[in-house]
Order: sequence, then structure tokens, then C-alpha cells
Amino acid sequence: MNAAIRAVVRAATFHGIEVVGVRRGFQGLHEGDMRLLGPRDVANIIQRGGTILLTARSHTWRSPEGRTLGAGHLNAWGVQGLVVIGGDGSFHGAHYLQQEHGIPVIGVPGTIDNDLYGTDHTIGYFTAVETALDAVDKLRDTAASHERIFVVEVMGRHAGHIALDVAVAGGAEEVFLPEDEHPAEHIAEVVRVSASKGKASSILIVAEGYPGGGAGVTAAIEAQTGLDTRLTVLGHIQRGGSPVSSDRVLASRLGEAAVLALIDGKSDVMVGRGHGGMTFTPLADTWEKRKDVSRDLYRCAKTLSV
Amino acid sequence: MNAAIRAVVRAATFHGIEVVGVRRGFQGLHEGDMRLLGPRDVANIIQRGGTILLTARSHTWRSPEGRTLGAGHLNAWGVQGLVVIGGDGSFHGAHYLQQEHGIPVIGVPGTIDNDLYGTDHTIGYFTAVETALDAVDKLRDTAASHERIFVVEVMGRHAGHIALDVAVAGGAEEVFLPEDEHPAEHIAEVVRVSASKGKASSILIVAEGYPGGGAGVTAAIEAQTGLDTRLTVLGHIQRGGSPVSSDRVLASRLGEAAVLALIDGKSDVMVGRGHGGMTFTPLADTWEKRKDVSRDLYRCAKTLSV
Amino acid sequence: MNAAIRAVVRAATFHGIEVVGVRRGFQGLHEGDMRLLGPRDVANIIQRGGTILLTARSHTWRSPEGRTLGAGHLNAWGVQGLVVIGGDGSFHGAHYLQQEHGIPVIGVPGTIDNDLYGTDHTIGYFTAVETALDAVDKLRDTAASHERIFVVEVMGRHAGHIALDVAVAGGAEEVFLPEDEHPAEHIAEVVRVSASKGKASSILIVAEGYPGGGAGVTAAIEAQTGLDTRLTVLGHIQRGGSPVSSDRVLASRLGEAAVLALIDGKSDVMVGRGHGGMTFTPLADTWEKRKDVSRDLYRCAKTLSV
Amino acid sequence: MNAAIRAVVRAATFHGIEVVGVRRGFQGLHEGDMRLLGPRDVANIIQRGGTILLTARSHTWRSPEGRTLGAGHLNAWGVQGLVVIGGDGSFHGAHYLQQEHGIPVIGVPGTIDNDLYGTDHTIGYFTAVETALDAVDKLRDTAASHERIFVVEVMGRHAGHIALDVAVAGGAEEVFLPEDEHPAEHIAEVVRVSASKGKASSILIVAEGYPGGGAGVTAAIEAQTGLDTRLTVLGHIQRGGSPVSSDRVLASRLGEAAVLALIDGKSDVMVGRGHGGMTFTPLADTWEKRKDVSRDLYRCAKTLSV
Repeated sequence: MNAAIRAVVRAATFHGIEVVGVRRGFQGLHEGDMRLLGPRDVANIIQRGGTILLTARSHTWRSPEGRTLGAGHLNAWGVQGLVVIGGDGSFHGAHYLQQEHGIPVIGVPGTIDNDLYGTDHTIGYFTAVETALDAVDKLRDTAASHERIFVVEVMGRHAGHIALDVAVAGGAEEVFLPEDEHPAEHIAEVVRVSASKGKASSILIVAEGYPGGGAGVTAAIEAQTGLDTRLTVLGHIQRGGSPVSSDRVLASRLGEAAVLALIDGKSDVMVGRGHGGMTFTPLADTWEKRKDVSRDLYRCAKTLSV
Repeated sequence: MNAAIRAVVRAATFHGIEVVGVRRGFQGLHEGDMRLLGPRDVANIIQRGGTILLTARSHTWRSPEGRTLGAGHLNAWGVQGLVVIGGDGSFHGAHYLQQEHGIPVIGVPGTIDNDLYGTDHTIGYFTAVETALDAVDKLRDTAASHERIFVVEVMGRHAGHIALDVAVAGGAEEVFLPEDEHPAEHIAEVVRVSASKGKASSILIVAEGYPGGGAGVTAAIEAQTGLDTRLTVLGHIQRGGSPVSSDRVLASRLGEAAVLALIDGKSDVMVGRGHGGMTFTPLADTWEKRKDVSRDLYRCAKTLSV
Repeated sequence: MNAAIRAVVRAATFHGIEVVGVRRGFQGLHEGDMRLLGPRDVANIIQRGGTILLTARSHTWRSPEGRTLGAGHLNAWGVQGLVVIGGDGSFHGAHYLQQEHGIPVIGVPGTIDNDLYGTDHTIGYFTAVETALDAVDKLRDTAASHERIFVVEVMGRHAGHIALDVAVAGGAEEVFLPEDEHPAEHIAEVVRVSASKGKASSILIVAEGYPGGGAGVTAAIEAQTGLDTRLTVLGHIQRGGSPVSSDRVLASRLGEAAVLALIDGKSDVMVGRGHGGMTFTPLADTWEKRKDVSRDLYRCAKTLSV
Repeated sequence: MNAAIRAVVRAATFHGIEVVGVRRGFQGLHEGDMRLLGPRDVANIIQRGGTILLTARSHTWRSPEGRTLGAGHLNAWGVQGLVVIGGDGSFHGAHYLQQEHGIPVIGVPGTIDNDLYGTDHTIGYFTAVETALDAVDKLRDTAASHERIFVVEVMGRHAGHIALDVAVAGGAEEVFLPEDEHPAEHIAEVVRVSASKGKASSILIVAEGYPGGGAGVTAAIEAQTGLDTRLTVLGHIQRGGSPVSSDRVLASRLGEAAVLALIDGKSDVMVGRGHGGMTFTPLADTWEKRKDVSRDLYRCAKTLSV
């Protein structure tokens, strides 16, 4: 997130545009919690997790009155275009601001879940995968007998992107995605087949969006096989940490692209990266259309756990 | 663990002694799962988590018949002294082997929990603390409002050593140790006081040995304050990962010391490090006497969370 | 590399094909240093740096006699297709083996330098960038006055891919690429401009392929500005370390794709990933055609260091 | 450093004492660059490398006039005691301030080099060792033939503490310390013996204080053996990075102890940790007496590289 904020501020400055930062998202917009941001204000933050503008889990954007107040603050500051970094909630708010108040808005995909249509990857995704993968690597060190099963629940909301990448990169024995529900009896089968191949350990990755989550899979295995099964729920640690290079480079490109898009007169679109170049997707498409997990990668995961 | 195995093999070789490795602990001793280990067999393992000799959660050491079988295998291989790397279970087994079969035994403290009397630190402890600390650091990045409380449960069995070090190093707002039960009503008080000081976040560390564990503390806070409280249970990831330098240096020193102790004719003792030097503690003392957490450090934790 | 070896072995096994591993590259092919590799032989290696098949910096592939010997060994083992993981040296050898001995060959791009035409990224690249970035982050912590300049030389052979990504992700003040030589007098200018903007520190990234390398840039700055300038040459540490997730996922996909390509009857091509899908490029193109650094990213780097 | 600053501020606040922070060390003291520091000013910094108070490589402390100016600023702010975090330069300045102006001073050992008499470890030492060790681990991944030697130069000024710990923890084949100069012809002998034992790689650690440094050892090996020898000079990356837990715990303890010492009326001493407890050493002793490397650990290093 900080890398994206830095990129917006620096690119705007480069092009002679002043930047006002809004703290705590739509909550701060509503309250007028804003300040000028110059290029030195965003120095030495690219490597930091979190965001210097803070966040609030606000639903202010849902209220027309809230949006009117926010638009008032933007106008008072003379803001001529708004860059919104976030996920579908933030994008809804931005979309309505544009519709109702005519303020040009550009969305930058900033969510670890990678569940936005219109971009191959979202900012924060690579770091979340790396954090979860590090946990899987550590578990593998202690997984020295097939008497024990490790279940790792990773984030991703309703999508299995994180789970699938972690499963492939971690060499997991099986992955449970919201996009592909296993029949209940299949779960224990996975474990039995794994043992029959002489595998020395079993690490199973479960997306939090999979019905029942990690706890459900753990309970099912214990009930069906009687094996000692340990659950690790990584939770919010996947949202923090110094971002990996791929996230910083992506954030830098998208932040610059958002500024250039405003200069070009674009609005109500999300900038993204796909097929090797920058893309622009109507904001409404980003939450209405569904981005499936890579079926090729899913097949690859199955093939390589042979 | 690997660093300790390497140290034993290399130090013994240096002093002209051959080494036989027993795989899977007392389970392998019982089954005679043993092989010669030369200095090249332990090359390139010092940086690896886990153990090349594997582990089994066996209770074979509890049975006199099992110990007799194990002693038979040791005698058949011509073993004249046994180095046991582990915690109190392994040390019990070693103690009985010595008592019943006259085999010289030296214990090396290898457990992440640091709960053995007779040594300032145990091998694996520093790495476990570092892994838990890394999780706390990542959580801190996302802890941007005092509307949300993060509870992190760390390992340590019946002892609070890991929890206390993680709390101090992570700058946690509070720590819950088995050694010092808080009254139930105190838990919410902690959170309220923290908020009243203007603290932007609350991270609470709970030792797994604290009554109710992390889940209990989480439930108590939510019941008493209504605040959104998130629990992270780190689990077995604290047992893996490439060991940090302090663990590798400690393992190297203790592994060498164990070999020198056998050469010196010592037996039925654990080698440890304390007060700046090597120590030797009767094996029975290691589990019968209690190593308290540092009361000075506990006071320091309280003082610094002001 | 290990992730790619694992993927080839597992994918081949999945499709009913036996795999023979050749140790130490063309050196081992020449000597017949080969053995069967089953799916369990590649268990628990995906997270390890280096390669279980080892490497040799051999020029055996240059000699027709050496290739004839190698082809003989392959035929003796009944090998019907060869997957070569490496860079342009290895690909030359593979190409000639195919030309001269009719053995189907598929190249998998395995080099940290990302300098092969026909794929967006090569295996090992992301990890090398991450390692260099970690060093830059650490330097930034100590860069607290503009009296001191830090110069970091990163790998990349004749290409600036690593340097450019590290510069963007590390928020460097300037980057020196082989693809874009700065006039000598420009170097000091960079430093003076940076100071005049009130920047608290200056970190400059230099690709090893830039004329004079890091040492040359360091000497030029000291000569022209008299400022205390410190050089860090990261060297081979960029070639090791547990691979990051992006490298493991890429290696898994490319390893599987190489096996599928052989099954499909393809030969003398490199599998790569570009524009969101798998690509196949004639081996000779991979070293004859030039892959430029991203000019968009280069512009972005300049813009964001404002 | 930040952990120590935080500990001083929080402990003082706890005991009802106000804290004034001096920026950029003696340079800032000279200029009166000071401000009040409350407990919230040091929130969320314990995990950060560097120091929020910045540093300057100033020699202002050497000048009696400079110290008189500094004492004037301290008196103007009503400062009744000074905690100085640093190494022997800073301690000299503190000592003279106390001698000449009667200001109570307490030293806190903050240097990565661990070269201060009167404490087992200095703040920053453990992190520097870990950073260097990480580099050694990465090199080991690529060290796959004894045709190649890796030389790693680590920091430590005139002392070999870092080098020795890194050598033991990294499983290095040899270590070159300022405390124990090898005869020149010995260097190549080390490499030859290593190869003769069948070692698959050679990693040599050289303290920067060893005569000739890493470059000298590298040149000697190449001259005497003709083997391809690669030098890595880690440099200032060892000074940065998020501190490891041992450094944060040590800093927390020592920062609190410094405040308690001032309250107790102590002055002109350094707080340290040794033999399991807090120690107080006259400031002059810290630079006049010499802290040797651990001879036991040195012997252990030799034994385990067998």
C-alpha cells in the first residue's frame, strides 16, 4: 500500500500536480481528515508494511449523505481527481462518488486476496503468498512421519488464489479451494492415497473461503482417519510485513498509471496489469465479473503432488 | 537439532571416536534403526530445520522391556556412551538406560520450550521466539485502530519463556503467562487501560500453557468489551525453520561439551550453559526442579508497556 | 532449480514416463553420471536453494566429441527426450545434441539474470531480486545523512533486469544499467540533485554489466563530489537461498510444460511464460535475440525518484 | 537502537521522569537539537532498524568547547542525567561531560561490533551476526564443487566476535580473526586440507580487522592455490535490518537498567549484561580494557570444522 501511495505522490509531483492524502479511507473522507503530501513525505516508506494513511473498516461509502460530505471536502481542497487504493468496497464508494458528484476516480487494486477482475495480480498478494509459504516451509521441517497431518488455512476471502499458489510453491499434498468443493469423503481419501505413496508427510492447504474452512477439513480428517491432525490458521499475519519486490514493483507501476490515467481524462476505471501491459477496467466490472483461479495451475498442482 | 548432531559427530571424530546415529529417537533405539555417522554425513545440515535423524513421538522409553531391547542394540554396536538430544521425555529414558543397563548417558537440552532446569537456554528456543516475533511484527503493521485487538498464542508447554521474550521483543501491550494467572476481570481492564493511553493498537501474547489459552483470552475480551478481537495460533511453525545463529552456536557448544563429558567419564547429567560457562546438571534435576521465568524481565515487560 | 527438477520428475511420472537425472550438467552427461529419479527422490526439495543434481561450470558441451559421448550415454539409458534447465551455455549444448544426434531437447530457462529471449522471467530471477532488495532495505536503515552515498552492485551479467527491479522496489535514487550508459559527468550530477531535493539518503543501484561496475561508479562519485561513498558488492549470495514463491510457481509450470512439450513431439525449443500463457521459442532465438529491459519500468523508476 | 530509546523513554515515564531526546548524537547536543519524548513517540519503533534519533559521525565530543555548549543545552532543558547509547566514541564524550560539567551519565552499549569491555553482548550484535549468517547460508547453496572458494568479510572493527560466531553458526571451514593472525602460508594449507577431506565446498570467514581483510585472504589463496576464489564484502548491510529478538530484549533490559541506575545515583558507568545479571562498569574501563573473543568458542570452531 505504501509503495502505491508513494508512486501516486511522486508521479503526480513529477507531472506538476499537488497531492492531498486522505487518512482512514472513506471514514477520513467523510470527516475531512486530509493533508498535503509532498515527495519527501513518502520517503523511506516503500519497504514498510501497512499504510501511512491508515485504514478504517468503514461503511461510510454506503451512505449517500456520507458521500456528499466527502465530495464537499474534496471540493473544498480543490481536488480534481481521486485515486482510490483498495478492494471492492472502496471501489463501490469511488464509483458512486463519480456517478453522483462527477469527481473523476481511478481505482488501484490493493487487496491481498487477488479477487478483482481486470488485473492479473493485486497489490499485497505476492507478500501474502510469501508469508503463508514461509509457514508451510517451517511446518515441513517438522513433518517427519505420516502419522501426522498438517492443515494450513490461508486467506483469500471467497477466492482460492492464495491457497493455490501456496499449494504449488509449498509442494502441498492437496489444496481445498472455494472454486472446487471436494466431496466430504474425498478428504480422507487424499490422506490415505498420500500415505500409500510413501509420502513422509502431509501438508494440506485450505482457503478460508472453502466451506468449513481449515477447521472443517481438520475435523473431517480426524473423524474419517483417526490420524493426529494439526491446524494452523495464519490469519492477519498475511496482511502485514515488508512487501516483497513483486508487490512493490506492481504498486509503483499502478500508482504511476493511475496518475497518468487521470491526466488522460479517464475515470471510473481500475488500472491493472495483464498480458504484459497496463489495463483499464470499468470499476463495476471489477466486482461484477468473476476472476477464476488458473485452471492450468490447478491441474499442475494435482500433477505435481503425484 | 541438526547443529547439535553435527557437533557431536564432528567433536567425536576429532577426538578419535566413532559415532552411530539412532534414527527416530527411542523408537529407533528399540528397533535397532542405527547407522554409522561420519563427519561428511553431517555436512551442509547446520542451517536446516528439523533433524536428519528424524523424530518419533514414542513412549518406548517408558517400558523396561523396550529399554532392554535398546540396550541390546547399543551393546551389539559396541556403543560406550550415549548422547541424548531432547527434552524431559528423552531424558527420562536416558536416565533409566543408565540406571538399569549402566550405559553412560549425557543429555543435551533440545526443546523449543526452554523448560529444562540447569541451562539458561535450550536448543531451538531462540528460533521459536524469532518465528513468533516475526508474526507479531506483521500483525503490528495492520493494527491501526484500537477498535481491534490481536491475540497471539505462542508455544512453551507449561512455561512462559517464549511468551515473555516475544512480548518484550514485540512490544506487546500485555502477556499472559502460566506462571502468573490474571484474574479474569483483569483481562478486559488491560484492554481498556491500553486504549485510554492513546495506544493505536493492542497486541496481547498468550502462552499456550495459560489457562484457557489464546482462545480463552479472546473470548474473555470479546465478552467483557465487545471489541473485535482476532486470534492467531502459531502452532507448529514455531518448531521449524532454519535455526538462528544463537541456536546454532549453542548447539555447537553443547554438542562438543557432551562428547568431552563422556570422555571425562561423566554420566547421567545434562550439559547446559549458564552464567557464562558450561554447566552439568543431574538428569533428574532437569525435570524435577522448576525453572521460573525471569522475574526481572517480567517486570521490565510491565514497565515498558506503559 | 530444485523446483523445476521436481516438476519434471513428477509430471513425467504422472504421464507414465521414467526419468533419469544427469548430475553436474554436461560434465556429468559426458561422464555418464546419471541415475533414475522417482517422485520420492524429489520430495522435500522445492524449498531448497541450489540443485540436487549439482552444477559444474563445464565447457564440455562445446566439443563435438563430448556431445557424442553424452549422446551415447543417453542412448544407453534409453533416453528419448532431454530437458535442459539452464542458460545460454546449456541451451547451446542442447541445440547441438539435437542437431547432431537427433535427440529431442526442451530448454527450461533457469538463470537468475533473466537475460533469455522468449520468456518474461527466468527461474531464480525473483529470488535474486528479493535478496538484493533485502540488502538495499538494510542499507536504508543506516542511511541517515546525505553526507554518505551507498552504491550497491547487483548481478545480471550483461543485462540490467535485476538492477532495474531492485531500483524500483528499493526506492533507489538512481540506477545504472548496461542498456543505458550515463555520461561520466552525469554520475555526480545525480548525487547533487538528490541532495538538493532534501533527500536524506542516496542509494544507487549498479548492474554488474554497467561499464566499470559498482567500483567504477563509486570512484567517479568520490572523485567528482568528495562525498563518503560506500560500495556493497552482493556477489554470489544472489544465487542462493530458499526460492521465493514466484520462482517456485514458475519452475513448477515450466517443468510440467517441458514434459508435455516432449510428449507433443516438440524439440529444440525453450518453454517460457509470456503474456499470461506458455510460450515456445526456438533455442537459437533465446540467445540470438535480445530481451531489452522494460522501458516503461525504466521511465517509472526515473519518475518515482523525483 | 530504537528498542533502547523506547526502553529509556518508557522506563523513565513509568518512574515519573520526563525525557528529552537528543538528535544526531553529540552533533545535536552541540546544536541543541532536542525535543521532549513521550511514551507514544516511541510506539511502533521496536521492530525498526536504524534510530529515530538519527546519528552523525561527529567528533564534536572531542572539543572542550563543544562539550561546554552541549552542557549548556542540557542545563537549559533542566536535564539531570544523560543516557548515552553507543560505542567508545560516545562513551568518551559522556565521560568528559561528567568530569567537566558534573552531569550524571550512564552508557548503554550500542554497537554491532561487541568490542566493549564490561558486557557479554552489545545491542545490535546479534542482528549483525544473523545478517552475515544469512549470506553464508545463501553462498552454501551454490558452493557445489571444491574448485571454488568463497571468502566472506564481515564487520567487527578490531575485534573478531562477529566473525567467530558467524563461522561457528555457518559451519565455515576456517575463520580469520584479528586476535589470531595466521602465517601467510597457512591460508592455502587450510584450503588444501579441506579439499583432501572430501569437503564439497569451502567457505572462509574473515573479520574486517584481520590484516589485509577479505581481499588479502582472497589474493593469498589465488596466488598459492590457483583456485577460483570469490569474495563477498557484506559491508553496511550488517548495520541495518529489523533487529532480532535477542537484541530487542537486551536493549529493553539495558534501557530500563540505565534509568534505574540514574535514579540510584550512579554515574560514569556503562550498564551491561554478564554472568546472567546486570553489570556496571566504569566508562573508562569499557575502552581501556580488552574483551577477548571466547577462546572456548574458537577451539570449538576448529574442532567442528574437522
